[in-house]
Amino acid sequence: MTDGPASTVGDAGERALIARLSARLAPPPPWVLVDVGDDAAVLDPGRGQVGVVTTDALVEGVHFRRDWTAPDAIGHKALAVNLSDLAAMGAAPRAALLSLALPADLPLGEFDGLLDGFLALARETGTPLVGGNIARSPGPLVLDVTALGAATRRRVLRRAGGRPGDELYVTGRLGAAAAGLRLREAGRAPAGEAERECLDRYERPMARLRFGVAIGRSGTAAAAVDLSDGLADAARQLAAAGSLGVALDAGRVPIHPGAASASPADDGLQLALAGGEDYELLFAVRARRRSRFLAAARRFQTIGITRVGRLLSETGAWLERDGVREPLPEGFSHFEAGRPAGRPWTRNASDI
Amino acid sequence: MTDGPASTVGDAGERALIARLSARLAPPPPWVLVDVGDDAAVLDPGRGQVGVVTTDALVEGVHFRRDWTAPDAIGHKALAVNLSDLAAMGAAPRAALLSLALPADLPLGEFDGLLDGFLALARETGTPLVGGNIARSPGPLVLDVTALGAATRRRVLRRAGGRPGDELYVTGRLGAAAAGLRLREAGRAPAGEAERECLDRYERPMARLRFGVAIGRSGTAAAAVDLSDGLADAARQLAAAGSLGVALDAGRVPIHPGAASASPADDGLQLALAGGEDYELLFAVRARRRSRFLAAARRFQTIGITRVGRLLSETGAWLERDGVREPLPEGFSHFEAGRPAGRPWTRNASDI
Repeated sequence: MTDGPASTVGDAGERALIARLSARLAPPPPWVLVDVGDDAAVLDPGRGQVGVVTTDALVEGVHFRRDWTAPDAIGHKALAVNLSDLAAMGAAPRAALLSLALPADLPLGEFDGLLDGFLALARETGTPLVGGNIARSPGPLVLDVTALGAATRRRVLRRAGGRPGDELYVTGRLGAAAAGLRLREAGRAPAGEAERECLDRYERPMARLRFGVAIGRSGTAAAAVDLSDGLADAARQLAAAGSLGVALDAGRVPIHPGAASASPADDGLQLALAGGEDYELLFAVRARRRSRFLAAARRFQTIGITRVGRLLSETGAWLERDGVREPLPEGFSHFEAGRPAGRPWTRNASDI
Repeated sequence: MTDGPASTVGDAGERALIARLSARLAPPPPWVLVDVGDDAAVLDPGRGQVGVVTTDALVEGVHFRRDWTAPDAIGHKALAVNLSDLAAMGAAPRAALLSLALPADLPLGEFDGLLDGFLALARETGTPLVGGNIARSPGPLVLDVTALGAATRRRVLRRAGGRPGDELYVTGRLGAAAAGLRLREAGRAPAGEAERECLDRYERPMARLRFGVAIGRSGTAAAAVDLSDGLADAARQLAAAGSLGVALDAGRVPIHPGAASASPADDGLQLALAGGEDYELLFAVRARRRSRFLAAARRFQTIGITRVGRLLSETGAWLERDGVREPLPEGFSHFEAGRPAGRPWTRNASDI
């Protein structure tokens, strides 16, 4: 099949787009009882499992720029940010839905690229695409993804559940995605391995799915959240969900070397705390479960785990540096112009 | 709380929007184990139930115009079109997610109106809003909804399942929504009860949820689809899903009186066949199950049910009129400019 006379999604028309999509789908796994092609998809929830469901959108001009980012990276990221939310719940992915609003002048090659990036990550993570929607957009390209997962009811990792004295552990090294965004903003090609990794983290984040599921199943964490909005925001979320306070230890924050070199004045600390989009996980762990938690975490040798702080009985969010407390920086505020991330609804203590 | 200096969603900022939303939420039903405020929602799938999931979007300038339609009608419709897909599967609603892309200049009053319309229908149908996303849009207002339902595995109503000779039954009277859209296009106030009803059907469609669930549970229908794209398209979908043909009887199509008066030349037949957006249901029923099917259907006395045609062993879609066959008109093609409906992915026989 060639593109023939149709070179944009508007020329191709809806049925041709659906055909291009359907042709790319792998056969579904056995728990998908009805997939693409009916009024709705039907999923076997799994014996003794509860359903976990989340949605997150990428909007052109807000969360990505088409002139900066390859189409397959956009498709990848649209799924990855949702899988990160499943990981933070300790849920294994079961399926995804993709709702596209497409500008009529979107080249067909970019449409294919979006799908290819989305579906490559879907295959890699065992997340079959079971349905969605294609609509025309008179404005930006919008990718709205719903991810569905499964977990054992008593092993779901909530944000609430932390207690005063719980230790906070974070995966990976932080600030890489924010440093990658800076590279893109500067229009500069990455120099060296650390910068290449930063760009890759920004454009092709990898949700810590297997890590989140393993910790969930181990029953060793009291609470968890992902770092879509940065470590400072994640720490605040864990604290707020338990009506607690939080203190992070500035000297312990694991900073990605690319973030440190992007912001040498503070060795990348601000990028690591508030840069966002790292899609790492933050766990609250009772001190008495520490060794079992670390044993479960260390099965993932390529993903570091670092103790970065603790929950406090009194509300307030602090950064401790050389024994001195200062207020913890804010994370992103996402509705304002030009910020690179969206935010699922959260019901903070202050919002009720 | 007053709007104070903030009069648009851009002024109010994201946290204030989330607070306005959270304040409107009713306490969740017992099957919602985790609702708004965590990384994802958690749902009890229900004993012996399978999960049914669908997504559909409304895009400003494509599916609605803000200068034509009240905000609460837009919010209502965004949920209703998804519930219609659940109804067509015979699935009872369990939860919904709402992902919003909001222009910064959207007045706060309109934001509230969107939520109020959505949440009123959510309450009425027992569909708790358990999560979502708020993002900024540099272009149109976009409402992307995911609806989750539950059904007994063997009672799910698929599109496939029809056989040659099956009788086709449709709920309600058709063409009303298309006639309502014409009223809006003409900028004319509705005159009389029939026109008022048409406008209402266009702006506040009601999914046939209880009807679909009751027929599903009765086990008397072989297949079902909803009429988002009109009767002709729905009939084609049922036929294609079983690699069959279909014939509709022109004299039996139940035409809404408002459609008949909007298009007197053909008594509204074309609006009823191809107008779309009626969100009624079409069922394929084996002749030997007819009386049990009708007994189940007639428990809903306010919703008429009409036999409109039958499935054929040879492919092809026909309209029979006074004993003469002509090709069945096409329904909407939704990707083209200005058409009022979106289309979930369908995998037609011709698309594979």
